[in-house]
Amino acid sequence: MNTLPETRWNRRAIEKQRRLARVAGLARGAVLPTHSITQALQQLLNPGDRVVLEGNNQKQADFLARSLARADPGVLHDLHLIMPSVSLPQHLDLFERGIARRLDFSFAGAQSLRISQLLQDGRLEIGAIHTYAELYARLYVDLIPDVVLVAGYMADRQGNLYTGPSTEDTPVLVEAAAFRNGIVIAQVNQVVDDPGELPRVDVPGSWIDFVVQADRPFFIEPLFTRDPRLIKPVHVLMAMMALRGIYERHEVRSLNHGIGFNTAAIELILPTYGEKLGLKGRICRNWALNPHPTLIPAIESGWVESVHCFGGESGMEDYVAARPDVFFTGADGSMRSNRLLCQLAGQYAVDLFIGSTLQMDGQANSSTVTKGRLTGFGGAPNMGHDPGGRRHATPAWLSLVEGQDGLARGRKLVVQMVETFQEGGRPTFVETLDAVQVGQDTGMPLAPVMIYGDDVTHVLSEEGIAYLYKARSLDERKAMLAAVAGVTPTGMRSDAAQVRRMRSEGLVAFPEDLGVRRAEASRSLLAAKSVADLVEWSGGLYKPPARFRSW
Amino acid sequence: MNTLPETRWNRRAIEKQRRLARVAGLARGAVLPTHSITQALQQLLNPGDRVVLEGNNQKQADFLARSLARADPGVLHDLHLIMPSVSLPQHLDLFERGIARRLDFSFAGAQSLRISQLLQDGRLEIGAIHTYAELYARLYVDLIPDVVLVAGYMADRQGNLYTGPSTEDTPVLVEAAAFRNGIVIAQVNQVVDDPGELPRVDVPGSWIDFVVQADRPFFIEPLFTRDPRLIKPVHVLMAMMALRGIYERHEVRSLNHGIGFNTAAIELILPTYGEKLGLKGRICRNWALNPHPTLIPAIESGWVESVHCFGGESGMEDYVAARPDVFFTGADGSMRSNRLLCQLAGQYAVDLFIGSTLQMDGQANSSTVTKGRLTGFGGAPNMGHDPGGRRHATPAWLSLVEGQDGLARGRKLVVQMVETFQEGGRPTFVETLDAVQVGQDTGMPLAPVMIYGDDVTHVLSEEGIAYLYKARSLDERKAMLAAVAGVTPTGMRSDAAQVRRMRSEGLVAFPEDLGVRRAEASRSLLAAKSVADLVEWSGGLYKPPARFRSW
Repeated sequence: MNTLPETRWNRRAIEKQRRLARVAGLARGAVLPTHSITQALQQLLNPGDRVVLEGNNQKQADFLARSLARADPGVLHDLHLIMPSVSLPQHLDLFERGIARRLDFSFAGAQSLRISQLLQDGRLEIGAIHTYAELYARLYVDLIPDVVLVAGYMADRQGNLYTGPSTEDTPVLVEAAAFRNGIVIAQVNQVVDDPGELPRVDVPGSWIDFVVQADRPFFIEPLFTRDPRLIKPVHVLMAMMALRGIYERHEVRSLNHGIGFNTAAIELILPTYGEKLGLKGRICRNWALNPHPTLIPAIESGWVESVHCFGGESGMEDYVAARPDVFFTGADGSMRSNRLLCQLAGQYAVDLFIGSTLQMDGQANSSTVTKGRLTGFGGAPNMGHDPGGRRHATPAWLSLVEGQDGLARGRKLVVQMVETFQEGGRPTFVETLDAVQVGQDTGMPLAPVMIYGDDVTHVLSEEGIAYLYKARSLDERKAMLAAVAGVTPTGMRSDAAQVRRMRSEGLVAFPEDLGVRRAEASRSLLAAKSVADLVEWSGGLYKPPARFRSW
Repeated sequence: MNTLPETRWNRRAIEKQRRLARVAGLARGAVLPTHSITQALQQLLNPGDRVVLEGNNQKQADFLARSLARADPGVLHDLHLIMPSVSLPQHLDLFERGIARRLDFSFAGAQSLRISQLLQDGRLEIGAIHTYAELYARLYVDLIPDVVLVAGYMADRQGNLYTGPSTEDTPVLVEAAAFRNGIVIAQVNQVVDDPGELPRVDVPGSWIDFVVQADRPFFIEPLFTRDPRLIKPVHVLMAMMALRGIYERHEVRSLNHGIGFNTAAIELILPTYGEKLGLKGRICRNWALNPHPTLIPAIESGWVESVHCFGGESGMEDYVAARPDVFFTGADGSMRSNRLLCQLAGQYAVDLFIGSTLQMDGQANSSTVTKGRLTGFGGAPNMGHDPGGRRHATPAWLSLVEGQDGLARGRKLVVQMVETFQEGGRPTFVETLDAVQVGQDTGMPLAPVMIYGDDVTHVLSEEGIAYLYKARSLDERKAMLAAVAGVTPTGMRSDAAQVRRMRSEGLVAFPEDLGVRRAEASRSLLAAKSVADLVEWSGGLYKPPARFRSW
């Protein structure tokens, strides 16, 4: 460690030098000992620091989170945490104990209720709820971190890091501190002596200050696995409509699927219904997607040219490694994912985003936020909007041009696929989104809308498809939406004569308008009907996590 | 090199193995000899390959481009080139010689005329003209490369790469091939034996197949340097209006400046006029920007908290290295730029984009495309649009909310700063953009518009500011624009009574409405009046390239 002369312009470098000196007695080179990590964190962090903690969809810096939560709040307090995903109880223990005070995040999931409670209790302040892309961007502008805590599989003693298949956010989080005199600490499942023992390097050692071997492997959750046994005939019907009325009609070649039984059904009828329609090779070739197990039959049947992944998925490691022509893998054979690049791909490079929501209002604004929960939306708002900055064309994108204007441009297909009623009988189509009230109650500067109606091009329900991009007025848009809203209050306002006109004009399509036979919509169209079937399709390469091994 | 058993699923890996075997006699480990690079390229590439060639704003893989252009078109032909920036004559020699046939790119600049000619002559096909962000995204979806050719300062014999301050696109280009069994070749100015001799690692060696020492250092051009001597009083007047009528009014804290004398004038009056207005610390704190020399006085005066850069700028190396609290620098001291991350920052994390254009139509659509030239727009369309996927708020973003709707959202400030006439007396404000005709003539699927009018929030000319985001109708929008269009044909249609009304309603503001005194608008407000002044401000750290050393 060389000693810098202090100037007006290197305060961060001097401060870093000071902090590193504090742990000189603890660290062996770049390796911090497991048992003294809490002590090291107390010495490397200052109260009020801006700290990025890798909470991700799959990979969690859980050992570092737990160790930080054991710090003395008298020593370490008022941290400003920046987290892509707040997933673990320990993340919020940090606020309960006063170690952290302020939070910027993108997605909360299971912890969303507790975030709302801590907010009400005044123990937590929210900076903003971002999408992933924004959160990463602000790390380079006005949320530059002092300390970054991440997770990987393996590191050598110089800090070279192998993240494993769930690279996810790690590189973009690390870069922000590594090149700004911040401090980067990576927990790993294993520290190896010889750089040659690393399968590959995902983040160079010169970007990382310290590695520490965790007390146990990091926590990982199979978030993107859907059991085909739970797919119902109504999902199959909707999937058939999606293929005929959207994918085939617009020649959708590249796409992103949100997670859910609806989109899983689409994936699973490609090798059956899709094959029968002669669509193989014409649609669904290039994907921006987590490695969904339900995509296995389509891959094995030769539908899929490429899949770039946000993150990994438990149980899919061996399958992905054995399909390098389809997935992005390293020289070592294991997958390389990258949430930033996959977000960019999902925003700018694909023809279609298709997702689901809990509520949609009469103008097609939608949100998954319900009372008492601050969930955030991860990447949905980025992928579920028409990026005005796009300048390249594809057949699907151009197929949405309406009118003859010399300045006309295409549009990204943004599809919402919803059943008219949620479980428990709550209507999906509502007068006003709960999100509006939640926004007001929690003092948010704007209502937490996931996808704005003016970005939605198609709404697909079990009733039919509303081609919203064709609407010539707000009233027509509302009428189109009502036509597919079934017996919800929104749907009940629909007028039969108007619906007939809209069907004949191609503004709305019901299954029979698309040549979709309702009688055919059964589970027998699913290429795999259970997790066991998926394992079989994969030739035993897919190894489902215990909770899905119920056969 | 281990030999893989061929399966249905590893064709790319097998093919890579086959190609690597072909050069086994030429390469020494990861190092290819300088003198046999053309031979190596002929063996590593196949006809029809998709090849990324690093042509960047600053850094050029020029040795690899020249060497590829010397290949035998009988052996190597019909390549599909993907280039962020087409900058050098050699890039187009590849097409003239039949080695390459198809081109996807983002920006052409000086080569734009020749691209149009080659296109007309049928020697070049265009895939699409992308923005940078889209081009990167498609490398992971449907433009996955077979071979990637990049440039750096230095590498060791394992291929670990130090890019130097202009990291720019290199990491995102390399990743697409490194994790997809493509081949990555980096030219460097120097190959070192010991990894310890590298200042730092920007791209890990396990991502790179071969390095080759170039016959001379790569070409780099000072694209972002503007000589303050060429800033005119009218630029100062416009800069004063920008500060009062936009930056101060909307509390613009984070921003991106396009390149030009207009924005250079803003940078140079911050320490004078801005200081007098008491705006220091309130505006212009966080920047996404190349290291413009004209920003030096503002940095030295303490205005600037941070600058994240797309790329480097010749002559700014030592200055940037000496200001690590402001710029992103590595442990070695030199700058780390990253075009992908800076584009993301410019799109999602900043309050304001301000740029210029050659033509603007009556609805504020603008383009820099003129007859006979296919230039592309680089990143301007991404930064110059309101990203609908944004979900976090800032004071500036919220200040553009109009109306009381519960679902109202803010907007990004997208400012076009133009003189009403271009050099040579051509009006900036035109009936129809030349781009419409160019689009038709060249068979483009859509007219090459740089920034669409509906994304533009403010137009600033020497006449005044039109606050377009306040327009309640298309007619009002046109009238507001006409009010600042001076004596161009567009401006001549302006109605005096209507202008008075719009000024009183705050839709349009003239200098006197903003408290800007025209008499004060002189070059004396510029904190630096020459390149020599900039050098002095920098304490001699800024080393301008020869062509700017005219004092």
